[in-house]
Amino acid sequence: MEAFSDGVIAIIITIMVLELKVPAGVHGADLASVLKLYPVFLSYILSFIYIGIYWNNHHHTFQAVGSVNGTILWANMHLLFWLSLIPFVTGWMGENDFARWPVTCYGIVLIMNAIAYTLLIIALIRHHGRDSLLGEAIGKDWKGYISLAIYAIAIALSWFSSMVSFALYVVVAGIWFIPDKRIERKIGH
Amino acid sequence: MEAFSDGVIAIIITIMVLELKVPAGVHGADLASVLKLYPVFLSYILSFIYIGIYWNNHHHTFQAVGSVNGTILWANMHLLFWLSLIPFVTGWMGENDFARWPVTCYGIVLIMNAIAYTLLIIALIRHHGRDSLLGEAIGKDWKGYISLAIYAIAIALSWFSSMVSFALYVVVAGIWFIPDKRIERKIGH
Amino acid sequence: MEAFSDGVIAIIITIMVLELKVPAGVHGADLASVLKLYPVFLSYILSFIYIGIYWNNHHHTFQAVGSVNGTILWANMHLLFWLSLIPFVTGWMGENDFARWPVTCYGIVLIMNAIAYTLLIIALIRHHGRDSLLGEAIGKDWKGYISLAIYAIAIALSWFSSMVSFALYVVVAGIWFIPDKRIERKIGH
Amino acid sequence: MEAFSDGVIAIIITIMVLELKVPAGVHGADLASVLKLYPVFLSYILSFIYIGIYWNNHHHTFQAVGSVNGTILWANMHLLFWLSLIPFVTGWMGENDFARWPVTCYGIVLIMNAIAYTLLIIALIRHHGRDSLLGEAIGKDWKGYISLAIYAIAIALSWFSSMVSFALYVVVAGIWFIPDKRIERKIGH
Repeated sequence: MEAFSDGVIAIIITIMVLELKVPAGVHGADLASVLKLYPVFLSYILSFIYIGIYWNNHHHTFQAVGSVNGTILWANMHLLFWLSLIPFVTGWMGENDFARWPVTCYGIVLIMNAIAYTLLIIALIRHHGRDSLLGEAIGKDWKGYISLAIYAIAIALSWFSSMVSFALYVVVAGIWFIPDKRIERKIGH
Repeated sequence: MEAFSDGVIAIIITIMVLELKVPAGVHGADLASVLKLYPVFLSYILSFIYIGIYWNNHHHTFQAVGSVNGTILWANMHLLFWLSLIPFVTGWMGENDFARWPVTCYGIVLIMNAIAYTLLIIALIRHHGRDSLLGEAIGKDWKGYISLAIYAIAIALSWFSSMVSFALYVVVAGIWFIPDKRIERKIGH
Repeated sequence: MEAFSDGVIAIIITIMVLELKVPAGVHGADLASVLKLYPVFLSYILSFIYIGIYWNNHHHTFQAVGSVNGTILWANMHLLFWLSLIPFVTGWMGENDFARWPVTCYGIVLIMNAIAYTLLIIALIRHHGRDSLLGEAIGKDWKGYISLAIYAIAIALSWFSSMVSFALYVVVAGIWFIPDKRIERKIGH
Repeated sequence: MEAFSDGVIAIIITIMVLELKVPAGVHGADLASVLKLYPVFLSYILSFIYIGIYWNNHHHTFQAVGSVNGTILWANMHLLFWLSLIPFVTGWMGENDFARWPVTCYGIVLIMNAIAYTLLIIALIRHHGRDSLLGEAIGKDWKGYISLAIYAIAIALSWFSSMVSFALYVVVAGIWFIPDKRIERKIGH
């Protein structure tokens, strides 16, 4: 199952670059036509980091896991579903210079990913027991709760300033940038 | 062989998102332009679940399998061929608001997938024997037969109401949503 | 190295479906708009089978192989290069109803693939010795020579009748459809 | 981690072919319409070789590596980020007949890849020690320094002659074409 998830995440992170199209009709060879793509690049970089974080934590989590059941399998599929929407909202947000609705939708996809990841962790702990390696390693998932709160605020604020929302998405990425020390400490690597 | 199949299925499930394009020329930043995509999203979700189901059952089946021969290999390739057409019919159905022909073709691709999967199972059982682990685990494949019947009805009904057909495709997905307990029970995991 | 090659081949076989686009502007929901795609589908099916054959033989060959060197590695990369062009010529041939030049180029890509595969085998045998398992298993590569001859004829004939050329491409696929019994016999599986 | 990187690199090298589109509106079946694509093909070939070189050296390097830490992981992600931009700049350079800015940007992406690879090696050596297998194998990284110098010259010269820049990119590819003998010699294969 990890090989399949790794494969899907590898594809998601890579096909995002297909959204980096110089808009048809322009195809200019001058710098201006590329500089106009800066919202596309910013969105691309942020999404690349987000998917990197998810891959990283997903990878660490499943190293602490022995067996899976049907619920875990579909919880994982559910996470992959929301991850797979990131290239779409990334492209939409980039093309529209961080307009209100794309930024809101980007946040909704991010919060759904966070919820899906939390559900996956819950399914794993329910299967393996709270006193398992994973259960102990996760402990109180404060980073998860804080992220959900910031996402919710960012989505609400996207109606006033999409730039503030984008900045908040960057903040959450910063919180998660470091690999999950909790698990790393318990299982080494 | 399983690694290759996993890879192909991972790519199929992921490139489907490339069909989720905000239609060229629109690129609107308003919600309406995304809401108009709802048939695209519905199709996407259904296809995502279908491919998830196939991956899941494929994975479980090949865990019960020791060796393969040339026939199994090409039966597997045949299944991958029909799976690979799912993104195409998904995009076509979504773009046309569940118009008659796309819905019919979507059903035809689904029924061909079901037939290809059945042929793969037959090839596997012929190679390993009906009294093998897999042969016993599959037993009477009533879920397979019921699915084929529902698909056939849905394809016929697509001429009267494409919505009924779509609902029937959802029903079959529901039947298969649970991983194949028959095999899981026999081999653990 | 095999994992990487498997990955590349899996992606090549899958992204071909992205060429199966209902032409922009048409997006018709009627059957006619799909039936007009029949050259695209025929090309897709043939290319799918070709890539399946290459994956199959590549896979069997590398199961008979213990170690690799730099030459083998780049011979393999060279093969992947020509395989990676198959989706492009497939799309081009399909879109133009088997017009002369696309059919010629399709043949050129096929013959280059055959040459690249032959070079890979030569590099493998040079590294492992003619009396190795692989060297014995390959023996006289008559299937390879016949294929090269048929491709050359098909490319030449594409100037008179592209349908005859296409038929000859189908003939070669037929010759190779069966997995390489020579190797399978020697190493089991 | 290597499986994930292999997957991403396999996808990058393959999706580049999606940039090889016969320009919309032309779709000519004549040879001229393909010959006009020669800058696209030249760019494609060069980028294919570059990604092949990176995969090759990445693969050899990680065979000499036992464990990884968080820094290595993100240094690797950083390299994958710059690799993932190669299809974009390749397509842009090819479409614009080696115009000035695309050639400059192609060079910038190449130099960022070289820097990212150097940072990855530094992170690896810092983790494993200069007297480790890898530390000894790399020794003085003169190939790396020469490449960086040539890239810098090529980027500067792109303002006078983009053809000279392109030639210099080819030269660097030539320097790296041979797998890293330093590591190969130490660890065999």
